[in-house]
Amino acid sequence: MANELGKKVAAEAAAQLIRNNQIVGLGTGSTAELFVAALAARAVNEKLQLTTVTTSQVTAALADRLGLTVVDIDAVNHIDITVDGADEVDARLDGIKGGGGALLMEKIVAVNSSDYVWVVDNAKVVAQLGKFPLPVEVVPYGAGLLFQKFESLGYVPSWRLTADGSKFITDQKHFIIDLHLEKISEPEVLARKLSKMVGVVEQGLFLNLAQTVIVGFADGHIDIKKRAQ
Amino acid sequence: MANELGKKVAAEAAAQLIRNNQIVGLGTGSTAELFVAALAARAVNEKLQLTTVTTSQVTAALADRLGLTVVDIDAVNHIDITVDGADEVDARLDGIKGGGGALLMEKIVAVNSSDYVWVVDNAKVVAQLGKFPLPVEVVPYGAGLLFQKFESLGYVPSWRLTADGSKFITDQKHFIIDLHLEKISEPEVLARKLSKMVGVVEQGLFLNLAQTVIVGFADGHIDIKKRAQ
Repeated sequence: MANELGKKVAAEAAAQLIRNNQIVGLGTGSTAELFVAALAARAVNEKLQLTTVTTSQVTAALADRLGLTVVDIDAVNHIDITVDGADEVDARLDGIKGGGGALLMEKIVAVNSSDYVWVVDNAKVVAQLGKFPLPVEVVPYGAGLLFQKFESLGYVPSWRLTADGSKFITDQKHFIIDLHLEKISEPEVLARKLSKMVGVVEQGLFLNLAQTVIVGFADGHIDIKKRAQ
Repeated sequence: MANELGKKVAAEAAAQLIRNNQIVGLGTGSTAELFVAALAARAVNEKLQLTTVTTSQVTAALADRLGLTVVDIDAVNHIDITVDGADEVDARLDGIKGGGGALLMEKIVAVNSSDYVWVVDNAKVVAQLGKFPLPVEVVPYGAGLLFQKFESLGYVPSWRLTADGSKFITDQKHFIIDLHLEKISEPEVLARKLSKMVGVVEQGLFLNLAQTVIVGFADGHIDIKKRAQ
């Protein structure tokens, strides 16, 4: 079970990593939003000059409301550091993202960031990835045939839906199909296989990307994990 | 140089491959349009019952005007045969597509077709792929950073633009970056590398897909090439 204090202490620790004049990528989701709030408070208190790029329209609106300067990703030529949440993280610091539906923009920001940090509560740390449904962002045209293909491969797909039962549409105008795999024994193999499939825009396995993971616990302590070099 | 008679005889030969009651995929571009016209004429003359799915809004409009029944790709569970053009074809029947900007929908239809045929005039047949700029369909978000990455890799990118100088937007709401590679010595390696890049939705190398290529010549003869099994 997610714990709110764990999220908060992880987010606040991450906000301490940001230095003046940096270009900062802002993630999407409940823990990332706590980071945005903590960062905005620091920026005001310490008069930091920061430029931010975001991973969703929701986060852009939040950052703007809190007084952070938000620019388009193509207005910058690099991103110094990005802080985002994750839905599952394993011991290698690989993980699954996309529960919030922003995996594509999140991955685009991630691969363009010099430093890439995840903030999670300890409920997100798992021994093996796959219990959390793996989101796959797909082109609407032919998505029904792709769904059938996932079914025949045994991936147990389901459509991501909105509250009114219509298909969820991402910020980049695609659908999301969630794969209920339960266990992903070879993440790299699956990632490669999915990326090659025509109609797949991106998938939610974030492998070899996060360099630091800050885990927050219900008692308020944090654990900082670094990727092995 | 493209020759009109070559395109026409290839397109008409392909129209003869279609059988009654088939679900037919319709390509995009000048030669594919000649096929659509020839097919529509056959359907009328021979009272064929055909269902078609298309690879672009332009082709859908044409087919509809000519009286063919056009359905959404997700209204069918398979496609019997698709006929499309190509911008370059080599001796292995691999090729480059996307000059018309429809590569993504073309590839989605191609991979869902039991039989897949190209119609080209002989000017499209090349010893090595790459003289024709390779189109890459990309997510708008972060596309400028992807363009820079292509530059640093030596891919000589250019934005696909419309007549008024703005960025061309595909039917699926993406941009196209054309890579001026001149020579592609290892198409499979390049295809894999591009597909893995975050932000790349699809690329214009169609490898191991066309089973038959019908080449039309300026003197009106055709050459039918079959993929080695």
